[in-house]
Amino acid sequence: MASTFKPEQARVPPALQLPSPPITKFKIGLCQLSVTADKERNIVHARAAIEEAAEKGAKLVVLPEIWNSPYSNDSFPIYAEDIDAGPDASPSTAMLSEAARLLKITIVGGSIPERSGDKLYNTCCIFDTDGKLKAKHRKIHLFDIDIPGKITFKESQTLTAGETPTVVDTEVGRIGIGICYDIRFQELAMLYAARGAHLICYPGAFNMTTGPLHWELLQRARAVDNQLYVATCAPARDAGGGYVAWGHSTLIGPFGEVLATTEHDEAIIISEIDYSQIDLRRTNLPLEKQRRGDLYQLVDVQRSSSQ
Amino acid sequence: MASTFKPEQARVPPALQLPSPPITKFKIGLCQLSVTADKERNIVHARAAIEEAAEKGAKLVVLPEIWNSPYSNDSFPIYAEDIDAGPDASPSTAMLSEAARLLKITIVGGSIPERSGDKLYNTCCIFDTDGKLKAKHRKIHLFDIDIPGKITFKESQTLTAGETPTVVDTEVGRIGIGICYDIRFQELAMLYAARGAHLICYPGAFNMTTGPLHWELLQRARAVDNQLYVATCAPARDAGGGYVAWGHSTLIGPFGEVLATTEHDEAIIISEIDYSQIDLRRTNLPLEKQRRGDLYQLVDVQRSSSQ
Repeated sequence: MASTFKPEQARVPPALQLPSPPITKFKIGLCQLSVTADKERNIVHARAAIEEAAEKGAKLVVLPEIWNSPYSNDSFPIYAEDIDAGPDASPSTAMLSEAARLLKITIVGGSIPERSGDKLYNTCCIFDTDGKLKAKHRKIHLFDIDIPGKITFKESQTLTAGETPTVVDTEVGRIGIGICYDIRFQELAMLYAARGAHLICYPGAFNMTTGPLHWELLQRARAVDNQLYVATCAPARDAGGGYVAWGHSTLIGPFGEVLATTEHDEAIIISEIDYSQIDLRRTNLPLEKQRRGDLYQLVDVQRSSSQ
Repeated sequence: MASTFKPEQARVPPALQLPSPPITKFKIGLCQLSVTADKERNIVHARAAIEEAAEKGAKLVVLPEIWNSPYSNDSFPIYAEDIDAGPDASPSTAMLSEAARLLKITIVGGSIPERSGDKLYNTCCIFDTDGKLKAKHRKIHLFDIDIPGKITFKESQTLTAGETPTVVDTEVGRIGIGICYDIRFQELAMLYAARGAHLICYPGAFNMTTGPLHWELLQRARAVDNQLYVATCAPARDAGGGYVAWGHSTLIGPFGEVLATTEHDEAIIISEIDYSQIDLRRTNLPLEKQRRGDLYQLVDVQRSSSQ
């Protein structure tokens, strides 16, 4: 009977099997950093936090969105770095690479403003334990919102949107990357799940309006709907800054449960991920086999066209 | 620039414009009913609740999932009614039709076990203000879950799944229907939003395990991701019953905000819906125009093939 429902066709191409991760249980560190206008200080400060997280046992460390620069359209061009031009042109990612290599950890490096030719991106770099840049995710959905009297921001005034979803195989599993506003688009998380992600990391800087309304809600929804782990990392709140961040970096389990979180001050969250929970929850609620590919299909356009 | 992102292609066929509803502001009534093994009593009881909600100004009244019968595979065949065979064969829906006509209200009639030929369905009937059956929604995703020691249930032991999504134009706007477990499948809500729904009604009976974990989360997620209203209606809790329902019938606004809710006892929730809030939120966060049809596409299979 179920075969007439064509559950395998609910994802196009069909969803990949969840891969066996190199490690099933490990500690993740979420570094909710204070960010200042002093880039050198931000780099030194981030490095110290990464080292502290690693000392506490974290095998994967996640940084906030835009951790080397104030979050503003005025700042992005000034603080932007040409990541592909090598360490001298990008001290922020050079530090991440060195820290990953020396500490033998995986780093999801939050994001920094990236300059590439005449364009600017909001870019997350993922470093493997050998310090190699495994992948770059350029924010796909730019933060252009207008809630009058509350929060108005148009990243598209300075930034260009990325052109591709990012899933990367690391020593701590298959990780999908989204940056902040990317989390609002459920399709991206669905697509990552279909690509076999164990974990989606969203560096993000929600604000004082959308933070209390939606930050935890969206994380929990992405986790429970896709039955995988979700980790977010925000900057600490600077109430005197131009853009006031909500904070509340969080780890969510595949049942939508908050495993670890914090308020808005600087913090290093250390928490355990256990990927066997993914299999357990997918056995409890076999959504994958219950989807109705005869009624709806989510197409992963780039994966479709590459086949 | 945005045109290269092909936002209109993120839904296939492209999303419909939100239609102008016949009425923008109105009261909804959610009747969280106690349900017993006495079908006649259940019908009389439901009718009284509908009348009370209408007296309090509700133009739309929603009933719980399986309100005329205990929720169990043993009961479904016994309490099932042949809805298409007319009022004598279906006293439960005959009552709903009469109540809608006499009270001049729209009724989303929760659900009852439906017999059709040799099959049983979990079916929601929607009645217009003239008492006519506007649509029937047969639960698309059957509730087959297994959380050992907590909750195990297999609706598929007795029920057959429905074959089509249900969106209906009523005097209180365009309404998409899901029943309980249908809410776990985000694709259905996305598809309803693309068909121009103002409101999705989910009669549902989450349990004491999944209720506290996921009931409100899923409702809020469907509302905020799709920027529309979500209403749920559950039976009241009977702690001595075979299946213990979570209760907590709720109305959610298009920003994911809980507008009205209740605990687990019998209750009639009266709350206001204002569809202008949908336009407001879609202006604040223009997700529809920001989707990346160049990266992902949700196909509405039946709407595609009917074009």
